[in-house]
Amino acid sequence: MATAAGATTNSDQIRALIEGRVRAIDDKDVEALVATAAPGVVSFDALPPLQRVGPEAIRTRLQEWFGWYDGPIGYEVHDLHITAGDDIAFAHYLYHVTGRMTNGKPVDMWVRTTMGLQKTDDGVWAITHEHNSVPFDAESGKASLDLTP
Amino acid sequence: MATAAGATTNSDQIRALIEGRVRAIDDKDVEALVATAAPGVVSFDALPPLQRVGPEAIRTRLQEWFGWYDGPIGYEVHDLHITAGDDIAFAHYLYHVTGRMTNGKPVDMWVRTTMGLQKTDDGVWAITHEHNSVPFDAESGKASLDLTP
Repeated sequence: MATAAGATTNSDQIRALIEGRVRAIDDKDVEALVATAAPGVVSFDALPPLQRVGPEAIRTRLQEWFGWYDGPIGYEVHDLHITAGDDIAFAHYLYHVTGRMTNGKPVDMWVRTTMGLQKTDDGVWAITHEHNSVPFDAESGKASLDLTP
Repeated sequence: MATAAGATTNSDQIRALIEGRVRAIDDKDVEALVATAAPGVVSFDALPPLQRVGPEAIRTRLQEWFGWYDGPIGYEVHDLHITAGDDIAFAHYLYHVTGRMTNGKPVDMWVRTTMGLQKTDDGVWAITHEHNSVPFDAESGKASLDLTP
């Protein structure tokens, strides 16, 4: 939603950033994704370790992730909430990831994402924190990979 | 760090909110924790479902969590980062949770937390989003409950 000629709200800008990331995943474009992360980004990923720090760690993880898939990765964003101030914001959503791994296993699962963002001096939003996860079942100790919203 | 007589920064206020939550966990004080959540809070918890919405869902989950423990719950916050604007903020940290469950099982694990906050009209910070998780091992499908920072 434009607020003035050529201007967009901060929420619009962050929505566009997320839409750009979805396209980059469709393209398996590691560098386009890394470019949205701030130098000190702290990532809590769905897979170990507990945390990764810095764009290089994000790059390595993305290369690994894309390498696991034989063919395209489906990545659908649902229930997106964006809370944006002038230069600090956070967003969260669920995503439905689908595809087939190189070992033949199908992937069809829902994951939760939260991101924290800060506007840089150039007026561009950058991700300073990202948290991706699935819940786990306390009884079995297994990740709950078959949940749906 | 006080910015003026009697005043504190937004980061200080959020740090105090988190310290208050740690004390409330030590006291197993469900209502003190629920009181820090906004009416529309969206929670991505370490255990299913994918998401919970609203303070009542948080209350039920906390009652369940506290009920599992025989005796005190150890809850140590590490690597706390707070990013605060005038009325929107996010924070993330790792916590080390320890104790013994009523079935005798010891608990000793590290969990990641992210929270999104907004300042209410009363000038008080409230949690509008919370995300708690542990990673999982892609090979075994098991939650990685033995990771350390």
